[in-house]
Amino acid sequence: MFINKKALGTLVKQVRLFSNGVPGEPSAPYLQTEVPGPKSKKLMQEMEKIQQSGTVQMFVDYEKSLGNYIVDCDGNVLLDIYGQIASMPLGYNHPHLHEILKKQSNIATLVNRPALGVFPGSDWPEKLNNVLLKNAPPKLNMVTTMMCGSCSNENAYKMMFMAYMKKQRGGKETFTKEEEESCMINQAPGAPKLSILSFMGAFHGRTMGCLATTHSKAIHKLDVPSMDWPIADFPQYKYPLSENERENKKEDERCLSMVEDLINTWNKKGMPVAGITIEPIQSEGGDNEASPEFFQKLQVISKKYGCGLLIDEVQTGCGATGKMWCHEYFNLPHPPDVVSFSKKMQLGGYYHTEDFMISTPLRIFNTWLGDPGKIVLLEGIMDVIRQEKLLELVVSVGHVLEDGLNDLSKKYSNIINSPRGRGTFRAFNGRTTEVRNQITSKLKQKGIVAGGSGDLAVRMRPSLLFHKQHAEIFLSSLNDVLKEING
Amino acid sequence: MFINKKALGTLVKQVRLFSNGVPGEPSAPYLQTEVPGPKSKKLMQEMEKIQQSGTVQMFVDYEKSLGNYIVDCDGNVLLDIYGQIASMPLGYNHPHLHEILKKQSNIATLVNRPALGVFPGSDWPEKLNNVLLKNAPPKLNMVTTMMCGSCSNENAYKMMFMAYMKKQRGGKETFTKEEEESCMINQAPGAPKLSILSFMGAFHGRTMGCLATTHSKAIHKLDVPSMDWPIADFPQYKYPLSENERENKKEDERCLSMVEDLINTWNKKGMPVAGITIEPIQSEGGDNEASPEFFQKLQVISKKYGCGLLIDEVQTGCGATGKMWCHEYFNLPHPPDVVSFSKKMQLGGYYHTEDFMISTPLRIFNTWLGDPGKIVLLEGIMDVIRQEKLLELVVSVGHVLEDGLNDLSKKYSNIINSPRGRGTFRAFNGRTTEVRNQITSKLKQKGIVAGGSGDLAVRMRPSLLFHKQHAEIFLSSLNDVLKEING
Repeated sequence: MFINKKALGTLVKQVRLFSNGVPGEPSAPYLQTEVPGPKSKKLMQEMEKIQQSGTVQMFVDYEKSLGNYIVDCDGNVLLDIYGQIASMPLGYNHPHLHEILKKQSNIATLVNRPALGVFPGSDWPEKLNNVLLKNAPPKLNMVTTMMCGSCSNENAYKMMFMAYMKKQRGGKETFTKEEEESCMINQAPGAPKLSILSFMGAFHGRTMGCLATTHSKAIHKLDVPSMDWPIADFPQYKYPLSENERENKKEDERCLSMVEDLINTWNKKGMPVAGITIEPIQSEGGDNEASPEFFQKLQVISKKYGCGLLIDEVQTGCGATGKMWCHEYFNLPHPPDVVSFSKKMQLGGYYHTEDFMISTPLRIFNTWLGDPGKIVLLEGIMDVIRQEKLLELVVSVGHVLEDGLNDLSKKYSNIINSPRGRGTFRAFNGRTTEVRNQITSKLKQKGIVAGGSGDLAVRMRPSLLFHKQHAEIFLSSLNDVLKEING
Repeated sequence: MFINKKALGTLVKQVRLFSNGVPGEPSAPYLQTEVPGPKSKKLMQEMEKIQQSGTVQMFVDYEKSLGNYIVDCDGNVLLDIYGQIASMPLGYNHPHLHEILKKQSNIATLVNRPALGVFPGSDWPEKLNNVLLKNAPPKLNMVTTMMCGSCSNENAYKMMFMAYMKKQRGGKETFTKEEEESCMINQAPGAPKLSILSFMGAFHGRTMGCLATTHSKAIHKLDVPSMDWPIADFPQYKYPLSENERENKKEDERCLSMVEDLINTWNKKGMPVAGITIEPIQSEGGDNEASPEFFQKLQVISKKYGCGLLIDEVQTGCGATGKMWCHEYFNLPHPPDVVSFSKKMQLGGYYHTEDFMISTPLRIFNTWLGDPGKIVLLEGIMDVIRQEKLLELVVSVGHVLEDGLNDLSKKYSNIINSPRGRGTFRAFNGRTTEVRNQITSKLKQKGIVAGGSGDLAVRMRPSLLFHKQHAEIFLSSLNDVLKEING
């Protein structure tokens, strides 16, 4: 399992022969100590002297981790179904990525980080085309790169504000002297009173613009000044979906009519809604889903009122739902105006339609505008996804998880409920927050790293190389945990 | 000049023997076409189809670029004194950085990017200590890592808001139910009405919180809603400083008294100033300097009113002024509460005092919290800075530039004026914006990449390996350009 330089060459040649994950992967979790172990605990004390680090679960040996298995510094080998908060498309130490970083031209890309808006490398337009646009959501053929999810949404919001004002000016990007002067002191008309509509339970990031649209947990927002922007309810469905169709449809209608009311109210109070931001699945706020019909009707509303529609695929994008982009499941009649990404994509950014193009230089700009060093990795990731047909794998392993979680929810209906999700992007609820926390914590002591989302959900965000045997290990351990809790 | 794998080994062994930059560097700029050349122009057209790219100056061959010389895709070799907007500490393809990326453990760091707040690598506390804290501003022994300058300032502002409210609660981080509920809908008391005081001409980034404190150019801010936060004047000095002491001192007093007035006004209107944010040299807004006395008195005011003082060293940090941190020149009686960084540091983040520590988990947090792959490079950069005594080099070459620019400003006093700066972090003004643009554009046709800042300034942001001979090439070309403009 432990990777080294010599073995790597052989592994690379073998990789296409294996259909069960990354070659050399352990066959099961293996714990030598409790988790966190004594070495992790000692490092935690060191880190506490430097920064707040109460969220650290363990310290990891990233040379030894491989595929779906994370190895901590105490020698514990854990099956990772949390994937660094949904950001590891190929698990650990994928041999193809090691190969890529041996190439001299790629090393030059890593060492010479450009200001992409001023001095891009001569291969940059080709990389934008062949890596980012080739894998873009249908009909979105413009892309702007950023560093992380928050910066992506911040700049996407800015683009929606600018596009909204451009429309008010009849498609022009010329400004009055008053606008130019007033914006410098943060005042209208140059810094106009505009808003972004978001949803309760949403998570779009933690910088101040994003945070004003994030409503998943109080601890993210306390003590930070915010914007008076409209917040609609996100549908709260009853599960199983097939038994609650009528009620859930009503819930859709309730939330959509709230959206429309809020747009009217905010327009009237002189703070028009320039854009709507929404996740295809609320991924931090509790794995809350909404139906394709909900999204279709939301798009109709956005068009009716001339608000941009941003679909935030930072957590759902790059294949984990079984499609490259989760909103492809919604069969929207038009492409969303903007789709933001980050996490598994290695760098941030957003795709958008030509209508939302801002044509004056320096309005959407910063020093780095992303990082070509990450595109180099993403190119390799996309190659592996295509060559190994990983989206098909995600769909098929997704069914294994779906069946298994449905069964366990019936068997332990007093402990867990509402299994849901798409592909291997899945979740279920604990009866209470305490029970949920008990489940993730007991899973860890059985060698499985899972995460929570919202107040009740256990969330699964494994790599795209998560196979049937990994799903079975997880389901069997979960069964053991639920049995224990059941007493 | 062109780097290749074979030559690299030899270069690495030789690097300490050379004292004139990176071995193999060209001896002078060399142009084969006008800049941008035909290949760059063709790529610009391709890129325009994908995104707004009117700011692109040329497409670069990053394999061929070396040391202080950037090589474009048309084969033009230019002396780079702009350094990717101040973000290249060792120029291009430094052999030590290539060496670092050959190491298997470093490749593992690049391939396995962790969620640092949850699963840091076991070497992470050591890296924080030996790379970031070892090079910290005096007396600042806490550090939080981020991805870029904007995210760093956004989170530093949040920390100042939280620290301010913590003080209001007598040092506690407990919250009322009303605070927890109201923050979720962006309302007080949970999302309190607080402000950050900034300065006219400042640049702190472009995300919404940062942008509310950025006041350098209208084009950065137009159409983006903002915060009603106080903005003070930044001193506008007359040059040469030695001949205008009394007047500049008065200017200091005027701006400081404005700061105090604004704090009182905003406190009275129920939006207390939780923090003050300021650059040691306004680096995008025109290379505007303020005296050590100004900063000392500003700190007195910040202490008097209980506002945090953040010194934004994103552009000035990491050695270019001749000290690791520019504010070390100010002899502040206390360390600043927060110092933010990015650019040459490869990743973002901020140092802070223990007083500003927020001890509840998840309040300052995001998925990645920086990037250990960048720390690996920064470690190498810091080694080279120390071993090759680059801060001393910056000071001595800074004097060459200072003398040269003083002479040229006298010789061409009808064209340029106000030479200023510290170390190799230097600037001078053109008589008008048109003249300034003429200078940078003519310099480029002589094979020198320089940048502008504010309306009038030409800014120099070369690498820390910028030697006397590079300074002389620049000064001689500038002399030629000024002679041409003079007719």
